[in-house]
Amino acid sequence: MGKIEIPFIKYSEKTMEIMQNPGLLLVSVGKNGQPNVMAIGWGLIGVIWRKPVFIVAVRPSRYTYKLIEETGDFTVNVPSKDMSDVVEYCGTVSGRDHDKFKEKNLKAVPSKHVKSPIIDQCPINYECKVIYKTKLEPASIPEDVKSLFYPGNDYHTLYFGEILIVHADEEMITKKL
Amino acid sequence: MGKIEIPFIKYSEKTMEIMQNPGLLLVSVGKNGQPNVMAIGWGLIGVIWRKPVFIVAVRPSRYTYKLIEETGDFTVNVPSKDMSDVVEYCGTVSGRDHDKFKEKNLKAVPSKHVKSPIIDQCPINYECKVIYKTKLEPASIPEDVKSLFYPGNDYHTLYFGEILIVHADEEMITKKL
Repeated sequence: MGKIEIPFIKYSEKTMEIMQNPGLLLVSVGKNGQPNVMAIGWGLIGVIWRKPVFIVAVRPSRYTYKLIEETGDFTVNVPSKDMSDVVEYCGTVSGRDHDKFKEKNLKAVPSKHVKSPIIDQCPINYECKVIYKTKLEPASIPEDVKSLFYPGNDYHTLYFGEILIVHADEEMITKKL
Repeated sequence: MGKIEIPFIKYSEKTMEIMQNPGLLLVSVGKNGQPNVMAIGWGLIGVIWRKPVFIVAVRPSRYTYKLIEETGDFTVNVPSKDMSDVVEYCGTVSGRDHDKFKEKNLKAVPSKHVKSPIIDQCPINYECKVIYKTKLEPASIPEDVKSLFYPGNDYHTLYFGEILIVHADEEMITKKL
């Protein structure tokens, strides 16, 4: 069967559900061509400027931040149920000193429209090109949020990624999501 | 049957679909207690800071902008199929000189957690409290987007509304969405 192109809205509910538990896999790539993957539990899907958009939040301290700044794109990959250990691992170690693709036997497949690859084992993949970014402004963040998430002043940058294509393997989705 | 509380994720796909055609109804209220409704075709649903969030974009020239600035909350209402003329009307005239609730026989029902009311006739309603806002930064907007949407430099403010509750009438959804 393999993967087919689907409308960006289809499975957005499923994507949000899995994002909350166990998380999604955000893939980026540096100028050197080496991809990295991090786990994300936050993100938004919708429309702005008539474009389908996936917003992700990345702290400047993350290796992924450096990569997205270098190449200006990313992919969001929805893991299957049997990949929760991968998500946990990707949320624990940094790509600065780990090749998580290799260590977790993830297969990086070239994307159709962006430099960052997609993860073959993930049933749903979003290819996104950054069309806007904004650093969270400390003065506008509620105090309780600030003390909970920003004791080190490491404020996220929000990357607005235009969703250029969504791939989905519907058989895998039925069996493994 | 009436409305029940549902998880914020449920019907987010449906909401995005209707947002794109014919649009959603964004309700706000001023200090004077008078509600206003505008049509929106853009918006994002997701999670940030572990909170469910609905992002809406409002230009400073809009009457809704003044109201959200005054009270800090809004509701997003998903119209039924037979309300597309209402959506069109609400996207055409301004609340500064029109009482659109009255003119379109919309019934404003008090919200549970925010000052802005919800629209009774809409099968799904999101109650949102602004927890973050950011004005779009011209220098970060792609040139083609700028010339298409901002010839008058009227850049949107993005309001991040924490979704405090979602109401849905599942019978109405089945019959009228």
